[in-house]
Amino acid sequence: MLKARRDGYDGHGNLVVADAAASEAACRRLGWPERSLYAEAYVDFERELAALVVRGLDGSLAQYPVVETRQDPRLHICREVIAPAPDVAPEIADRAARIARGAVEAVGGVGAFGVELFLMQDGQVCINELAPRPHNSAHYSIEACWTSQFANHVRAVMGLPLGDPNLRQPAAAMVNLLGTGTAPPRIGDLSAALSFDARAFVHLYAKAANRAGRKMGHVTAVGDSPTEALDRARATANRIRL
Amino acid sequence: MLKARRDGYDGHGNLVVADAAASEAACRRLGWPERSLYAEAYVDFERELAALVVRGLDGSLAQYPVVETRQDPRLHICREVIAPAPDVAPEIADRAARIARGAVEAVGGVGAFGVELFLMQDGQVCINELAPRPHNSAHYSIEACWTSQFANHVRAVMGLPLGDPNLRQPAAAMVNLLGTGTAPPRIGDLSAALSFDARAFVHLYAKAANRAGRKMGHVTAVGDSPTEALDRARATANRIRL
Repeated sequence: MLKARRDGYDGHGNLVVADAAASEAACRRLGWPERSLYAEAYVDFERELAALVVRGLDGSLAQYPVVETRQDPRLHICREVIAPAPDVAPEIADRAARIARGAVEAVGGVGAFGVELFLMQDGQVCINELAPRPHNSAHYSIEACWTSQFANHVRAVMGLPLGDPNLRQPAAAMVNLLGTGTAPPRIGDLSAALSFDARAFVHLYAKAANRAGRKMGHVTAVGDSPTEALDRARATANRIRL
Repeated sequence: MLKARRDGYDGHGNLVVADAAASEAACRRLGWPERSLYAEAYVDFERELAALVVRGLDGSLAQYPVVETRQDPRLHICREVIAPAPDVAPEIADRAARIARGAVEAVGGVGAFGVELFLMQDGQVCINELAPRPHNSAHYSIEACWTSQFANHVRAVMGLPLGDPNLRQPAAAMVNLLGTGTAPPRIGDLSAALSFDARAFVHLYAKAANRAGRKMGHVTAVGDSPTEALDRARATANRIRL
């Protein structure tokens, strides 16, 4: 796997290289040698996890729950986030959180960092990517946590004490509204979504161009279980046609 | 009690008139006859309640919980809000909510309306004032309710379905940070407040002039009971010196 060292997102900046013969073309396509690349072993992961970490100017840490992220298999873009990650043993979630914190401390980061992780069949956890910013995998925190990733990012860079990153309800889920290349979201669909669930949190980003795979918005729901939250977020998101 | 018909707030526009001799001077002081006044019987209330109502373009209603508001006895300005109003029998809270809804419907209002109420010794509920806007007595809804008064106000005037106005936690409390004529809030005090309670919600309005009695910010906390929420909101607010 070749990965651009910087500016990668949503699968952009990554290429799978099957053999040595393919590597030169792939390197050029990713902008090498002007752009630095990583060459990593291909990882046959079982699931993808993510953990948002906010680090303050004084080194204090706010660790958000370890979540499961589910990618669209065709678009390689995050489709759904479930918090906390369901069916992950506490010791594995703890290890994932520790690895995420360690990565942010290793680079001396300040502010919000989205840490994308692979969960292997054997329970091992590997880092996939470090995003030095508030991250799509923690948008659920806006309504589901005591302090959102955005509020804690601002607190961190201002040198203020960090707020509680934990969930206010037992579980939360977020569903991205991905563009399809047709029209922007319709106001009538927004009405349908809002009237379907008076507790769902619908975000539309007001992007005019509805390009295929573009993040046009997201829906968050909370619940007593990850399943309940995901069902509610999906049901509302499905009412917004893209 | 003489009350200006419009533009009254925080006790401004109200005067108690003890006898007929005092009424002419009081009327002039309130701007009569250019400004319309109400003359009302003085009400010896037991407590003050408030109920925020949002009414949609289509007449749909979102009824926020009936809260208790506690005024600063010297400044006549709201100091604390407790949601739901503690020690109020359900039938009295229901009646207060019905009266508030009825008032907004009577004036054909659209958007958020703060309805201030008096609770009498005998359980009777009277309307004190109708504020045709989002209201200080429902600022707690930003973090404590499924849909805040501000979000529902926007939904109402846009003709969108209204969101759930109910509390996400059993109780909430808000404490206003009232100015004292000294310096604006100090960043060090904000740090002290945020580190004291990682779940408290601190709002500072960035007003430069700290006039006596001016609303400089507020603190919201939620809890399992009104007492717990109020204790937490007070404890955090006390760390911000004004």
